[in-house]
Amino acid sequence: MGKPKLDALFKPSAIAHIGASADFTKISGRPLRFLLEMGYAGMVYPVNPQYDNIGGLKCYPDVEQLPSGIELAIVSLPAPAAVDAVEKFARKGGRAAVIISAGFAEAGPEGQKLQKRVQEVAAKYDLAVCGPNCSGLMNVGDRVTATFSSGLERGLPLDGPVAMVGQSGALSSNFLAAAKDAGIGFTYWVSTGNEAVCNFNDYVAYFLEDPRTEVVVGYVEDIRQGRQFKEVAKRALELGKPIILLKVGVSQAGARASFSHTGALASADSIYQAVFSQLGVIRAHNLDELFDFARVCTARVRPRGKRAVILTASGGAGVLMSDACEAEGLDLIEVSEGQRERLRRALGPIAARVAMHNPIDFPAEVLARPEMLRQACEVFAHDDEVDIIILYAGILPDGGEEKLAREIIQVATNCSKLVVTNWFPTPPAHVLQMLTAARIPYFTEPTRGVKAAARLADYCLLRKEYLDRRGKPEPEPAIRPEILAEGKSYLAELKKELGGRNQLTEYEGKKLLAKFGFPVPRGGLARTAEEAVTIAEGLGYPVVVKVVSPEIMHKTEAGGIRVGLKGPEEVQEAFAAVTTSARTYKPGADVWGVLVEEMIAGVREVIVGLTNDRSFGPVISFGLGGVFVEILRDVAFLPIPFAWDEAQNLLAKVKGYPLLAGFRGAEPGDTEAVVSVLMRLQTMILTLGGEIAELDINPLMICGAGQGAAVGDCLLVLA
Amino acid sequence: MGKPKLDALFKPSAIAHIGASADFTKISGRPLRFLLEMGYAGMVYPVNPQYDNIGGLKCYPDVEQLPSGIELAIVSLPAPAAVDAVEKFARKGGRAAVIISAGFAEAGPEGQKLQKRVQEVAAKYDLAVCGPNCSGLMNVGDRVTATFSSGLERGLPLDGPVAMVGQSGALSSNFLAAAKDAGIGFTYWVSTGNEAVCNFNDYVAYFLEDPRTEVVVGYVEDIRQGRQFKEVAKRALELGKPIILLKVGVSQAGARASFSHTGALASADSIYQAVFSQLGVIRAHNLDELFDFARVCTARVRPRGKRAVILTASGGAGVLMSDACEAEGLDLIEVSEGQRERLRRALGPIAARVAMHNPIDFPAEVLARPEMLRQACEVFAHDDEVDIIILYAGILPDGGEEKLAREIIQVATNCSKLVVTNWFPTPPAHVLQMLTAARIPYFTEPTRGVKAAARLADYCLLRKEYLDRRGKPEPEPAIRPEILAEGKSYLAELKKELGGRNQLTEYEGKKLLAKFGFPVPRGGLARTAEEAVTIAEGLGYPVVVKVVSPEIMHKTEAGGIRVGLKGPEEVQEAFAAVTTSARTYKPGADVWGVLVEEMIAGVREVIVGLTNDRSFGPVISFGLGGVFVEILRDVAFLPIPFAWDEAQNLLAKVKGYPLLAGFRGAEPGDTEAVVSVLMRLQTMILTLGGEIAELDINPLMICGAGQGAAVGDCLLVLA
Repeated sequence: MGKPKLDALFKPSAIAHIGASADFTKISGRPLRFLLEMGYAGMVYPVNPQYDNIGGLKCYPDVEQLPSGIELAIVSLPAPAAVDAVEKFARKGGRAAVIISAGFAEAGPEGQKLQKRVQEVAAKYDLAVCGPNCSGLMNVGDRVTATFSSGLERGLPLDGPVAMVGQSGALSSNFLAAAKDAGIGFTYWVSTGNEAVCNFNDYVAYFLEDPRTEVVVGYVEDIRQGRQFKEVAKRALELGKPIILLKVGVSQAGARASFSHTGALASADSIYQAVFSQLGVIRAHNLDELFDFARVCTARVRPRGKRAVILTASGGAGVLMSDACEAEGLDLIEVSEGQRERLRRALGPIAARVAMHNPIDFPAEVLARPEMLRQACEVFAHDDEVDIIILYAGILPDGGEEKLAREIIQVATNCSKLVVTNWFPTPPAHVLQMLTAARIPYFTEPTRGVKAAARLADYCLLRKEYLDRRGKPEPEPAIRPEILAEGKSYLAELKKELGGRNQLTEYEGKKLLAKFGFPVPRGGLARTAEEAVTIAEGLGYPVVVKVVSPEIMHKTEAGGIRVGLKGPEEVQEAFAAVTTSARTYKPGADVWGVLVEEMIAGVREVIVGLTNDRSFGPVISFGLGGVFVEILRDVAFLPIPFAWDEAQNLLAKVKGYPLLAGFRGAEPGDTEAVVSVLMRLQTMILTLGGEIAELDINPLMICGAGQGAAVGDCLLVLA
Repeated sequence: MGKPKLDALFKPSAIAHIGASADFTKISGRPLRFLLEMGYAGMVYPVNPQYDNIGGLKCYPDVEQLPSGIELAIVSLPAPAAVDAVEKFARKGGRAAVIISAGFAEAGPEGQKLQKRVQEVAAKYDLAVCGPNCSGLMNVGDRVTATFSSGLERGLPLDGPVAMVGQSGALSSNFLAAAKDAGIGFTYWVSTGNEAVCNFNDYVAYFLEDPRTEVVVGYVEDIRQGRQFKEVAKRALELGKPIILLKVGVSQAGARASFSHTGALASADSIYQAVFSQLGVIRAHNLDELFDFARVCTARVRPRGKRAVILTASGGAGVLMSDACEAEGLDLIEVSEGQRERLRRALGPIAARVAMHNPIDFPAEVLARPEMLRQACEVFAHDDEVDIIILYAGILPDGGEEKLAREIIQVATNCSKLVVTNWFPTPPAHVLQMLTAARIPYFTEPTRGVKAAARLADYCLLRKEYLDRRGKPEPEPAIRPEILAEGKSYLAELKKELGGRNQLTEYEGKKLLAKFGFPVPRGGLARTAEEAVTIAEGLGYPVVVKVVSPEIMHKTEAGGIRVGLKGPEEVQEAFAAVTTSARTYKPGADVWGVLVEEMIAGVREVIVGLTNDRSFGPVISFGLGGVFVEILRDVAFLPIPFAWDEAQNLLAKVKGYPLLAGFRGAEPGDTEAVVSVLMRLQTMILTLGGEIAELDINPLMICGAGQGAAVGDCLLVLA
């Protein structure tokens, strides 16, 4: 969806309302009412054969009678009639439609057919369609209120820098009304409905390019076009316009069906979270957070880091905010002697009664002399050691709130730091309006401003990393082109051999990985005990022996593995044992023989996996072996594509990381080798497209620092 | 602090204000102003030699001139003069004082002396003292406003069922003012200040016994009398009056200095949390939660369990609340066919458009016909399968909010379930007042009501367990009296032997534990290699050999342990090796020999510890061995005393519990044996009083189910 098409939705020169009702309380009556009441400047044309005029406007009996040149139609007819009307409107040169009507894909097979027709019409006439089954849309600045949203029952939203995209009409409407109470203003608002034509991402992309929009907030149930979303999120990062999403449905999404171990842990929500984390999408967990985060993102200054100083009119609030800083990941600076000296100079005699640590705690006198807070703020206004100034204020006697607000505005507008004001209890409305007008974010509970500032700081740091990375030259490919070519041609051969089978044996999987340059232990397939000994002799002892059968995936359970074999007799005996055991485990199984391999002495075991998400594409998973994955589900995810430093950061995201990095004198594992495997895996996946459906390297044996890693076992499923 | 004494603070028949200022904006002027303005019915006597009268009241030049029979004095003189005035007031028969003045223990050594004098005066004259260095107190019903709190700048608080105890004057004042906006009313309010005489617990205990008080909320920085707090919390549980605390200072509290491993993990905050969890104290993490939890606790019905049904006017809000239910631990019921049938009958034709799963999702029509929500609620009003009904409402056209509120009140007042209403955006103030008056808790964001309901349900379930436990006969003691006596007399002997030493060797510690009946492996102390062999032969092989020296606590690091010794030669060799190694590790160490023990084949290792908290007394800790404690700090705490079922529940509180209980076919450990050790440890600690300062049983070896456990090693420090 390009910009010109959505312009017809959001900036129409004239609007028809097809199926308009004269009863302005009805869903089919409200859009017309809102257009008339809220001050839309263009012409409005009601269409309904039952009336001659509605609300003083001439009413047209059908679409054919409409004058030409109307860009947008709001359609509130029953579903089948709605589709016909849209087609007629498009044929007359209409450019866009908001289909409010329900009864489409959400309503069963008949509705699905109707929705398909909407898509066909849209494609044929190049029509932008919002909905169907939506609450409509709004362009606040131009008073385009193509909606029946009850959010307008309390009047037009405030003008402001926030755009909203909502996948729930009712909740998005309520958000709109609540935002008015909270002093948050909008450029655009849309309820996406069934997204038959224009989808969630199209709207976000459109709003991002609008110069007045500084932040896009969204209520999300499901992003069906994940790859497109990623592109949009990248564009938002480039522009420095945060996307803040309340993503729900965490509890609905069960684990996915998966052969692979980490794949089973890759819940839909964990993939969303991984994409959001990678691309700086700020996640809100409730509507309070959605407001708070939107507010902080429209502050006049963005922080350059996470170093915070707290100035508080209450010691108790100071401790509470300190706890919040620790919980949310802000760093409280230590007040230096230099800063202390400057504070003393700024505050004069009262300085002796101010606690000069962080939080900087003022005595009750500050309530009568709010300029003290400003003076203290000014000390940090351009201090290189500070990124964020957090204020706390409470109730002030005698209208002191307004005076304090003026002081805060004075310092915050001449300050290179993010200044957030936590004000509890909430000061009078006109004081809040002063702060809003000056773009000083305020919060109605002390910890809320801390949390919001922390999320913005996270965003700013991630954005910096993102932009820095783009400035650097393209890195060396993780796999050389000739190796890649060899790997690809081997896979083509292998697929012929496999016939219909798509689950590879360990032997086949490792061979494929080896072709792509992964560190695979030396070894070979032995069909007889004698072959096994020959291979073992070639490798040198000790060796490992594992049964190979396309029908046995769980080799340990089948008694199909023997390790630490020290001589030919042990190898012979192991061959007999594992093949017999496998045949007992699964009678009639096609047992090819055994894989004989050198034995790798790793210091740790990790798991590296690949999941192909239906929406977002390939995602890498990483976790430590044993209890970490089995019991603690301690797995981190990283969507492809990623850079070397992102892969490095991934390792530290699991709780068990200290064990890998070396803990209390335990030998550290070769973390660089893990990163190298992740990079190689990414290159292989990008080269093969969707040919690999799932992959678990479990375990990846990690040797000591600088000693490399080796694929202990692998489970590979082709698409 | 008994009830009669605090009555003089909170229900005084007359009040003197010593050091009253005629400037009503000053801290020393405001208490008098508030008493006059807010309508206190008793006599008020200002004392200040500078004035003849203040605010129309006769002003007395000094305390001596005051008439007799005045129960309470508010004191706002400078600290030294304040103490003198309090003493004079007490000598004249005064019963209580609120010392607002600062300059006491918080201000250094001189102030500490003054505070000690306050304590002496209070003891001598049996005087109840609030403060010093406090904002004062309030009895809202009787208009006793003995405070300068800026919280009164917006008028007297509302009357209501909440009492507040605050350890921060400013924040507690702000809370008071914010509560007025939120429609939350108070019986009592107090800022505790330095707690020289009356402490935090005294106030809570006093408020609990007040029949109009239904819930006590508190802002807490430090509870110095933890044992008293526990008694107060138990009383609250008996009465069914929840205590809700915002406990801050999480980030300030570092790990405690400790020899023992789990002791080092027992942060001050984790001990608070353990006490709160054990005694049903509801913890708030910010002021929003403090309000929300107070509100839900004053609902007309308390839930009997965690089974919830959601009725929502927005599908999106429904999903959001479902997520919150899962996150907060409420169970969403499955709507049964019977319930569905009753819903259909209640709703009539519209039923076809209502989503009949949980959340029960209403179409937009519900906005025009709020009685539908009531009708659906009534289906569950006395349903045995449901404990909590969660409603969501948003904006309604044409004053529909009031109509909906009436419907909600109608059903909720005739309902045996907890009904919570999430209303976003916030409806008009008079609608909220209707709900408050009817004791229907409302919440301004959809997830907030879910969280509040969940905390109340947790509380109710814990209270039920607590009351059930009290109804049962006293359990058998975990250690028989004759064994206890033997243990005690052995400890007395041992202490003589030890001289000044308080850290026991493993050998001594195990012997002590064995005397108290703990499962300790068979074994003995060998001073020579020959003795070691003799002991080993007596035990049977394999055996373990560990060096014994009072100067070597970290035996592994000293190379002082050998396991799996299978014959006399190995034992002899091990004796030489570990003693030599120990002497190399710590030259000149007093090496007594080795402990020779049978080798225990456990399936798991756990750690059981004991910490003596300065405030709350002895606390048991429990965790799984290895990475669980070392890397994940996965330890749970349980204050003594506890019951068998509490010890059982403790095990499941660590993340690694599935490993102990048997996971994916791994052999389960004998969890009953662990509980038995915990019970035994408790009995030993209760018997010995404070004689044991610290104890780590690390590891406690756990055998297979029904096979018992054994003390692998122990670190025991006497007081």
